[in-house]
Amino acid sequence: MTMTETRTALPERSRRAGSAKTSPVRDLLALTERPEVISFAGGLPAAELFDLDGIRSSYDEVLQSPTVLQYSTSEGNPLLREEIARQYAAAGLPTDPASLLVTTGSQQALGLLSTALLDPGDTILVEEPCYLAALQTFALAGARVIGVPYLGDHLDLDALESLAREHSPKFLYTVPTFQNPTGRTHGIEARKRMANAARRHGFRIIEDEPYRQLRYSGDELPSIATFAPEHVLSLGSLSKVIAPGLRIGWIRMTADVRDAVTIAKQAADLHTSTIDQAAAAHYLTSGRAPSALERIRTAYSDRRDAMLAALPSALPSGSTWNRPDGGMFVWARLPEGMDASAALPGAIAHDVAYVPGAPFFAGAADERALRLSFTTYSPDRIRTGLSRLGAAWDAPGSVKG
Amino acid sequence: MTMTETRTALPERSRRAGSAKTSPVRDLLALTERPEVISFAGGLPAAELFDLDGIRSSYDEVLQSPTVLQYSTSEGNPLLREEIARQYAAAGLPTDPASLLVTTGSQQALGLLSTALLDPGDTILVEEPCYLAALQTFALAGARVIGVPYLGDHLDLDALESLAREHSPKFLYTVPTFQNPTGRTHGIEARKRMANAARRHGFRIIEDEPYRQLRYSGDELPSIATFAPEHVLSLGSLSKVIAPGLRIGWIRMTADVRDAVTIAKQAADLHTSTIDQAAAAHYLTSGRAPSALERIRTAYSDRRDAMLAALPSALPSGSTWNRPDGGMFVWARLPEGMDASAALPGAIAHDVAYVPGAPFFAGAADERALRLSFTTYSPDRIRTGLSRLGAAWDAPGSVKG
Repeated sequence: MTMTETRTALPERSRRAGSAKTSPVRDLLALTERPEVISFAGGLPAAELFDLDGIRSSYDEVLQSPTVLQYSTSEGNPLLREEIARQYAAAGLPTDPASLLVTTGSQQALGLLSTALLDPGDTILVEEPCYLAALQTFALAGARVIGVPYLGDHLDLDALESLAREHSPKFLYTVPTFQNPTGRTHGIEARKRMANAARRHGFRIIEDEPYRQLRYSGDELPSIATFAPEHVLSLGSLSKVIAPGLRIGWIRMTADVRDAVTIAKQAADLHTSTIDQAAAAHYLTSGRAPSALERIRTAYSDRRDAMLAALPSALPSGSTWNRPDGGMFVWARLPEGMDASAALPGAIAHDVAYVPGAPFFAGAADERALRLSFTTYSPDRIRTGLSRLGAAWDAPGSVKG
Repeated sequence: MTMTETRTALPERSRRAGSAKTSPVRDLLALTERPEVISFAGGLPAAELFDLDGIRSSYDEVLQSPTVLQYSTSEGNPLLREEIARQYAAAGLPTDPASLLVTTGSQQALGLLSTALLDPGDTILVEEPCYLAALQTFALAGARVIGVPYLGDHLDLDALESLAREHSPKFLYTVPTFQNPTGRTHGIEARKRMANAARRHGFRIIEDEPYRQLRYSGDELPSIATFAPEHVLSLGSLSKVIAPGLRIGWIRMTADVRDAVTIAKQAADLHTSTIDQAAAAHYLTSGRAPSALERIRTAYSDRRDAMLAALPSALPSGSTWNRPDGGMFVWARLPEGMDASAALPGAIAHDVAYVPGAPFFAGAADERALRLSFTTYSPDRIRTGLSRLGAAWDAPGSVKG
């Protein structure tokens, strides 16, 4: 039992575990936890907008029966899947509840689809930049990840076609609406071309739609699945429209992957919390969800406007940024020669934070880019934070590149 | 948009997805859902024994604050981890809360450890027979799975040593106490020898302990981690002692795997439900848990006794079975020449069911073996079910091998 008895070294951890890093965003958040810091770095919904009373009352209702404490099926709660199917149909995408599988947040959907679709060494395409935790999941699956670049605010669809021709990817992963990190949205023509490319070159599309319902201006756009129903797997989540703590997401599966995804789900965690699923189904059908979502949309819209109005005096002259129609993020670019990572400590010294864009790139990073979240604070607090940011660029110790 | 435009076939699903099958137990359960069937096939805890009022009250308490609806850390709720650490320490295994990571059921722990420790093609050892959903997870990770046989009711520890020497496995997976499917328990000398073998041959041990607290007779045994603290990763779960619907499990990690497991958890689902974790922490520290567990233990103990008393007249003459000190299962063996899978339809025709043992084997199966769960029904109902089973063997249409 003493240490001297140890003869043989412990086995190494897996190579794939070594290929993934802890999220720099996560490490950064630790730095900005001081209460005086106004952090635009996070990606959290605003907790004060959650319908706490309505959600508590749904938990109380479903916890009248012991069946919500029992094991359940891997596919998920039937009422919840019916309601999600109804919402898809209302948005123009007819959906069989049997094609839906409930996941433990939509993050889990990425892992299940990696298991069902990828063997180590397989190639996939992602938008460049891309949602960070997706890159991490694909790295752990041993995927070869190739970024499809943007031309300005639009995905380079010619590059998509030629990369698809050259690499025969298993799938393209996209967040088509109010993307994380850029807030960008693919227009209807881009969606059609992406769908056509998938059909022509024989790859799938995973469209991840956590932000679709967070629209503050402009018209709703059809799901890419509308244009290539057999090629598109759609992901959804309640994290941004009800609350993330429930960890409820889902996959809208094509028929040919149902078995493989269900097996992956069984192996991953048997099923998602029976209680959370039942409470989510109860809440979604309680009639309270639309007004709660409207309250969130109104508040976020005001916050986006406050950020966009204050950005001209908050970023160095020559900076550029977009004006997203929804979601949680603005994507900005510092002037030529500046580096967003190098400038961050200067900002934090002024009690304000953002996320540098670099970690969101699978390939060569745009060092000038940064992401600002506008959801967490009131318009006043956003103005205060951005005014601090404006002061940070000229202060001693700040880095101008 | 029409189907004739499709030029290229969809990509195949992954090879690893093809290597895993849906659980035969799961498919079988569908067959036995008729209410008149008394099914000893399942592995479900008894829902009527859950402390529904206590659990509902914990959810109500924690849902007073919106923080339980927010995103959380990948490692898990600090209060929950402190309470689990306290319970380990009380059972003789000093534990730092920081070494604990909360998982979405202990099933998820198997996937996270596969990601952190295994690359495709790596060899691991399992008990033969083994928990089915573990076999499935290891298959999806591309592991080469080798079974360590039992000699009667005891794991063949000489075989363990020679297999370890020959194959340099990354780990041995074991359910040391009241195993699923066999109900078997490794005694203290076996635990010491397993720990010594791990140290001498340089492999890890994953000890999965969902049933440890379901003891009805005999003395508590120390965790294998006690004898090889640097080599053993211990898994636990609230599924059998509180309720499975919460999907709360955990990994007690050694220091050298913490980073890799935390990254795997982030990629898997970011974190386990904030609400379920907070409610579990509240419930475990509410003072209600010990009496609820005692009620479960008393009921299961009576049910086990009822099953053991009725088995002599329920199984064909020449059958053998064990008498587990706890857990949920009795493992039986039909006489020479009989086949438990072939006989099952005859049992189901008599409105009673069991699980054939064959699917639980990684290698060559024992076709005579079967698993009987004693937790779901009252003693009276168990006697009725086993009397039906007794009648099934002699009925026309039954298969005697």
